[in-house]
Amino acid sequence: MSKIGGNFLEDFHYGDIIHHAIPRSITSGDASMFLGLTGTRYPLFCAKNFANSLGFESTPIDDILLFNIAFGRTVQDISLNAVANLGYAEVIFHSPVFFGDTISSQSEIIGIKENSNKTNGIVYVHSSSFNQHDKMVLSWKRWVMIPKRDKNKTIKEVLPKNIKPEVAVKRMNIPGFLKTNNFNDKDTGSSLRWEDYHKNDEINHSRGLTIDEASHTLATHLYQNDAKLHFNAHQMKASPFKRRLVYGGHVISLCRSIAHEGFENNLIMTAIHAGTHSNPVLADDTLYAKTVITGKDELPDHQDIGVLKLKLIGIKNQIPSSLKSTYQESAESKIYNENVVLDLDYSIVVPKGK
Amino acid sequence: MSKIGGNFLEDFHYGDIIHHAIPRSITSGDASMFLGLTGTRYPLFCAKNFANSLGFESTPIDDILLFNIAFGRTVQDISLNAVANLGYAEVIFHSPVFFGDTISSQSEIIGIKENSNKTNGIVYVHSSSFNQHDKMVLSWKRWVMIPKRDKNKTIKEVLPKNIKPEVAVKRMNIPGFLKTNNFNDKDTGSSLRWEDYHKNDEINHSRGLTIDEASHTLATHLYQNDAKLHFNAHQMKASPFKRRLVYGGHVISLCRSIAHEGFENNLIMTAIHAGTHSNPVLADDTLYAKTVITGKDELPDHQDIGVLKLKLIGIKNQIPSSLKSTYQESAESKIYNENVVLDLDYSIVVPKGK
Amino acid sequence: MSKIGGNFLEDFHYGDIIHHAIPRSITSGDASMFLGLTGTRYPLFCAKNFANSLGFESTPIDDILLFNIAFGRTVQDISLNAVANLGYAEVIFHSPVFFGDTISSQSEIIGIKENSNKTNGIVYVHSSSFNQHDKMVLSWKRWVMIPKRDKNKTIKEVLPKNIKPEVAVKRMNIPGFLKTNNFNDKDTGSSLRWEDYHKNDEINHSRGLTIDEASHTLATHLYQNDAKLHFNAHQMKASPFKRRLVYGGHVISLCRSIAHEGFENNLIMTAIHAGTHSNPVLADDTLYAKTVITGKDELPDHQDIGVLKLKLIGIKNQIPSSLKSTYQESAESKIYNENVVLDLDYSIVVPKGK
Repeated sequence: MSKIGGNFLEDFHYGDIIHHAIPRSITSGDASMFLGLTGTRYPLFCAKNFANSLGFESTPIDDILLFNIAFGRTVQDISLNAVANLGYAEVIFHSPVFFGDTISSQSEIIGIKENSNKTNGIVYVHSSSFNQHDKMVLSWKRWVMIPKRDKNKTIKEVLPKNIKPEVAVKRMNIPGFLKTNNFNDKDTGSSLRWEDYHKNDEINHSRGLTIDEASHTLATHLYQNDAKLHFNAHQMKASPFKRRLVYGGHVISLCRSIAHEGFENNLIMTAIHAGTHSNPVLADDTLYAKTVITGKDELPDHQDIGVLKLKLIGIKNQIPSSLKSTYQESAESKIYNENVVLDLDYSIVVPKGK
Repeated sequence: MSKIGGNFLEDFHYGDIIHHAIPRSITSGDASMFLGLTGTRYPLFCAKNFANSLGFESTPIDDILLFNIAFGRTVQDISLNAVANLGYAEVIFHSPVFFGDTISSQSEIIGIKENSNKTNGIVYVHSSSFNQHDKMVLSWKRWVMIPKRDKNKTIKEVLPKNIKPEVAVKRMNIPGFLKTNNFNDKDTGSSLRWEDYHKNDEINHSRGLTIDEASHTLATHLYQNDAKLHFNAHQMKASPFKRRLVYGGHVISLCRSIAHEGFENNLIMTAIHAGTHSNPVLADDTLYAKTVITGKDELPDHQDIGVLKLKLIGIKNQIPSSLKSTYQESAESKIYNENVVLDLDYSIVVPKGK
Repeated sequence: MSKIGGNFLEDFHYGDIIHHAIPRSITSGDASMFLGLTGTRYPLFCAKNFANSLGFESTPIDDILLFNIAFGRTVQDISLNAVANLGYAEVIFHSPVFFGDTISSQSEIIGIKENSNKTNGIVYVHSSSFNQHDKMVLSWKRWVMIPKRDKNKTIKEVLPKNIKPEVAVKRMNIPGFLKTNNFNDKDTGSSLRWEDYHKNDEINHSRGLTIDEASHTLATHLYQNDAKLHFNAHQMKASPFKRRLVYGGHVISLCRSIAHEGFENNLIMTAIHAGTHSNPVLADDTLYAKTVITGKDELPDHQDIGVLKLKLIGIKNQIPSSLKSTYQESAESKIYNENVVLDLDYSIVVPKGK
C-alpha cells in the first residue's frame, strides 16, 4: 500500500529529490476560476489581444495562479501534515506558461531542523516546476513546520545553506519577445511609468476583500493543494483556531488583486524575494493591503521597461491607513502586528518612458 | 500616482467619454462558472451542436453573462463608490459574442444630478462594448447614485435627454445567420411557439434559489466588478445592511435562470427595455421570480421567429403566487413591495409556427 | 404553456421513453470547476500529457463529472420534485468523453411503485447518455422517491425487472487505444499494481472534506441538476432537515476525491454496480471515506491491466477508523449507521505487473 496520511518530519532526508505526482494542464477554465476567486485585474492574464500587443503569442497564466498550481504539486509529499507554511525565498519566474501547458514539480530537501519542543520541526525545500517541454518555468525555496510522527525519534539536522535574501536583477528572466511599443494606457487605465514611482512611496490600497469558507476551499482545491487544515472543519474544531485555516497562497492571490490599484501597468512579476505568512487568516476575515516601493532597478538589456521592488503588506480587519507599524510597537524583537498576515517582497516589470 | 479609491460625484463631467480599462477575453471557463453560479438552462449557451443547428458557428456567450462582463468593465471608473445602481434602459444586444472574443467598454456621461441631501447624486451614462474587431456588441444606459467627496462642492447639473422607455423592435438586431429550420423541440423540452403566448399571461416560476456570500462574490469577481459594497464585510458592518450587498447583475442572472421555466424556447435576448433594482438583496435571501407577457411583436424580415416582451419580477423570500401586487398597496405613489427586488422589462426571440 | 413545476408520481408511465432536453457541451471550464469543487487528483483528467501517454488523444472528462452532468440532464423530467434519490445500479461507462463533446440523455421508465403512505412512490428509470455522434457514453438505472400530486389518484404499479446486482466484467468497456507501456509511476506517485491489492483489504482514507452551502450548490448548478431541495433554503426551512440537502452526486464526487489515496494508479472507472445514499448530507458536514476491496478481476483481452472491485463507504463527521460497522449494531434488519452517507460499489482499472 502507498503511504496513507502523508509524510512526517522523520520521513524527510537531506539531499533527497522528490518528483511530485499529478502533472497539471492549466486551462482557460483555471484562469476563469482564479478571476472569480480573486477579482484580479491585470489585463495580460484576461485579455488575449492585450497579451498579443505585448508580444505574447497567447494568453499567459497569471503569475500567482501559476505559483499556486506549481506549489500545489508539492503539498502531498511535503506539507500534507504541515502545521504552518513559514516562509518563501528565491521564487523566480523563468518562463511564461500558456493555456494548455502542462506543468510538473519536483523538490530537493535542502534543510531539516527539529524544534526544541521535539514534537515538530522545519523542512526546507528547493522546488522547481517544468512545462511539457521540460523547460523550467518556476523555482522557489520554502520552509514549513512539520510534526513528527514519533516524538522520541532522533532527527538528523542539516541547516539550509545559501538562502538569498533577494533575487538579484541579473537572475530575473524577461521574455525575449516582450515589447512595449504597442502598449496602450487605455488597456490598463493608467499612464504611470517606471519613472513615476519613487523609493519609499507607500500606497494604502482601498479595496477590502472578505474571505468565505467556500471560496478559499475552492481556490485551494483548484491547486490540488490538499493540506488537511484547509478543508477539514471537523478535525480543525480541536485546533487553536477552531476552524479551517486559509491557505497562504490564497492570501497572496487576494492581496495581489488588491495591490493592482496604483500598479495597473504591472506587466509581469519576475521574482518573489521573500514571503512570510505572519498571522493566520480564517474565513470571515477581510483582507486589506498596502504596498511600499522598496527599490527600483534598470534592466541593462531593456530600455523600455524597468523593475520595481515592492513590499506588499497584507492586513486583516483593519484599514491600511490605521496600521501604525507592521510590527508590534512594544516588542523588543520584531514581532508582527497581530493583524498583519502577509509580508511579501517581490519585483514587477513596468513600462518606462512616455 | 493613479487615482486611488475611485471617482466621486464631482469627478464626472457631462459629455466626457471614458475608455474603460481591462479588456476581457471571454472563454468557456467563464461560461462554466456562470452555469455553476446560476444553474441556467438555455441550451444555446451550453450546447455547441444546438448552437450550430441555429446557424451559430460556435457557442455564443449567454446574453446576461455578456452583459455582466461588459458592465464590469465600467465599474472601476463609474460605480466603484456607488451607493446604489438605480436603473437601466436601452440595453441593446447588437451582435453575438463567442468563446475567445475579447471585449472592451466605454461610457459617455449623459447626465449628472445632485440629490437634495447634498451628500450624493446621480450619474447617467451611456455605455457601449466592442469586440476585438471593434464591432459594437452591446450598449446600454444606466444611472447610479454616487457619493460626493466634498459635501460643499458645487455640482454642475445636466439632466439626461432622451432616455427611451423601450427599445423599438426596429432597433433590435437579429443575427443574419439565425435559422430555425433545424430547431428541435427535443433539445429545449418545449413545443411552445410564439403563437402560444398571450399578452398578460403570467407565469409564477416554481424554482427558488438561495444566495450565499461565496457565490455572489464569486460571480461579481468573475465580472471584475469591484464595487466595494459587494466584497468588504468589514466595511459593510457600519452600513444599514450590516453586510455585503449582492450585485444587482447577479440578481438578474438568477432571476433569468429561474425564468427559463415556461420560456424554454427562448432563443436570444434582443433588448432590456428598463430595469430597476427595487430592494436590496443580501446573502441567505432566496430569490423567486414571475414573468408577465407584456407584448408580442412580429419581425418584418423574419417569418419563422417572433418577439415576446416580458416583465420579470424578482421576489425575495416569498413565493410568487402569494405576491398580491408588485407595489405596496397602501402607498399613494408607486413604491415597490418590500420583497420585490427586480423589475426587468426585456424582449426575447422565440420560434413561430409548428 | 409547458409543464410548470415538474412531474409527480402520476405523470410517469411504464415503458415511456423520455428524451431529456438541454444537451450539454463539456469543456475544460467544467473540468476546472470540478477540480475546484472536489480537489480530485486523478491525473488522467487534469494532465493532457499523461492522458496522451495512455493513448487518449486528448484529456477525457472525469468519470464522475461525466456521470453528474449526464445525470443532471434527467432531473428536470424525472426528479425535480424528488423526495430522495434512493439508489443506482448498472452504471456503465461505455466510451470516454473529451473536452468539447456534447452529450444528451434519455430515460426509459422501467418501474413504478406506490408507497403504502399513498403520498409518494418510487419511479425506476433506465437512462442513457450519448455524445454528438450518437455514440452511447454512459448508461445507468436508478430509483427515486417522487411525491404524488393527488393522494387519491390511483397509480398503476409495474415492478422493475432484471436490475442486476453487479455489472459483469464482460459488460465493461475498455477503450481499445488504452495502453500502459508508457505509464510512469512518477506521474501518479504510486508504484502499486493490481497484484498488490488483496480482497478484503481496507483503507481508511485520511482526508476529510467539509461541505459549504456555496460549494454544493455550485456543483449541482454546474450539472444543471435543478432539484429544488438543493437550492431553496426558504422552502427547506419547513422540511425535517431545516435546510438545503446536498445532492448525492456531489457526495460521490467528494468521496471519490478522498478515495484517491491508496488508489493513485486508478486509470478509469468501468462501472458502478450499486449505490445508496444512506443518510442525508447537509452543509457543514465533513465527509470521510473508507474503501474495501471486494473483488479482483482479470480482463481476458488485456494482459497489462486488471479490474479492482471496490466498496466505497462515505462517512460524515466521524473518522473512518472509529466506525465499527457500516450498519447499526442493534438493528435486526440492516439499517445503515447514522453517519454512513454513501455505500458505493464500483470497479476501476489499474495497471498490472511491474
